[in-house]
Amino acid sequence: MPRYRIDLEYDGGPYAGWQRQADLPTVQQAVEEAIFRLSGETVSIRGAGRTDAGVHATAQVAHVDLVREWRGDTVRDALNAHLRKAGERVAVLKAARVSADFDARFSAVGRHYLYRISNRRAPPALGKGKVWWVPKTLDAGAMHEAAQFLLGRHDFTTFRSAQCQASSPIRTLDRLDVTRLGDEIEIRASARSFLHNQVRSMVGSLKRVGDGAWSAADLKAALEAAARAACGQVAPPDGLYLIGVDYPAD
Amino acid sequence: MPRYRIDLEYDGGPYAGWQRQADLPTVQQAVEEAIFRLSGETVSIRGAGRTDAGVHATAQVAHVDLVREWRGDTVRDALNAHLRKAGERVAVLKAARVSADFDARFSAVGRHYLYRISNRRAPPALGKGKVWWVPKTLDAGAMHEAAQFLLGRHDFTTFRSAQCQASSPIRTLDRLDVTRLGDEIEIRASARSFLHNQVRSMVGSLKRVGDGAWSAADLKAALEAAARAACGQVAPPDGLYLIGVDYPAD
Repeated sequence: MPRYRIDLEYDGGPYAGWQRQADLPTVQQAVEEAIFRLSGETVSIRGAGRTDAGVHATAQVAHVDLVREWRGDTVRDALNAHLRKAGERVAVLKAARVSADFDARFSAVGRHYLYRISNRRAPPALGKGKVWWVPKTLDAGAMHEAAQFLLGRHDFTTFRSAQCQASSPIRTLDRLDVTRLGDEIEIRASARSFLHNQVRSMVGSLKRVGDGAWSAADLKAALEAAARAACGQVAPPDGLYLIGVDYPAD
Repeated sequence: MPRYRIDLEYDGGPYAGWQRQADLPTVQQAVEEAIFRLSGETVSIRGAGRTDAGVHATAQVAHVDLVREWRGDTVRDALNAHLRKAGERVAVLKAARVSADFDARFSAVGRHYLYRISNRRAPPALGKGKVWWVPKTLDAGAMHEAAQFLLGRHDFTTFRSAQCQASSPIRTLDRLDVTRLGDEIEIRASARSFLHNQVRSMVGSLKRVGDGAWSAADLKAALEAAARAACGQVAPPDGLYLIGVDYPAD
């Protein structure tokens, strides 16, 4: 059967995350139902990142096998029409035929996340649900400096959810940049793959560095403790965006 | 009575515009009710721009007279607490004592608007309600070039709502820039003041230039016709943001 790669944008707010659940609306279900309306097929799609409830994506990637041969643009436009009709907050950015050995999850060699903090006294009005509101002024420079201790290959048990199902807590973090743009702090994280809640756990701990509760050495010690209890805080999902997935062919 | 300048951000989506109405929620009412909860005073605030239903602001300015002398930061934080409690999509960015001759509307010497167009095949998921979705590719360069014909002092009757209450249709447009950033087209408009629906009417007409229906000469002819019927289209409120107001002291 022909395989299709589907690139997706979504507002995670109304969803209980990417992965299908029995009784809650999920992004996976929204897309699978749109596919059913297009082709009459009951399919199971696989995504590159299993984003949590409330987490957004500007560039999630999924794949699906369909019986018929469709033009990519037709799949994109038809799925978007069905998604809009159903009132979903999901859009298909691209759809394209790919070879049968492409797997959105297992072929991925890099994942990129953005975390947005609104760092001002006033709560977000336009950005509600799209940023983490931290009213106390954070030192983004100190956060960036401390973040560099987390780069490289480590046991990230401290920054891993107790529910994480990965067989190993070892990951290699390639990038963790913290920059301030006016009232907003942007944190960009890149790795081949992340543990469950890893980005939000690292951001929550970096926030402690930013507000002066932790030194850079405290962050390093938390990593080295390799114990979940050493994690500073888990940042809320609102500010997190899956912004890119890399594949060997790209 | 001490006068306060209040700088506001809001998501226009849930509101029937800035100005108080009998039976519909408005931004003015939301702020006036928060002030009542702070001081027990029933006040009428005046805003620099009377934004329409669905139009957003990152920097609206209003003023209000209160009986008591408050610290600006106290007013800001207290109003934000009341606005959040009431579930409003309005935030007070700043509040400050100003002299009695400051008038948010009549002292303003410049107003700045941003209009955002999402120009891609996929409908907006994250940007829903915050951009105008135009799937057909627009030529932003041609739009910018044509826009320059509108600069300067003109009779803007073509780009003015039939409901506009201004005594004269003459305005001086200082800036109308069109730029593309990836899939997004940004239009920035500046003037001492605008007529009712002027930015949205200009943007709707520029869109016709962008999609090839109009030439730059057609836009010029529409302006010179000085007739509402010559307007191309009125762009939807979703993409419009009041992003700045200038005062002589600034």
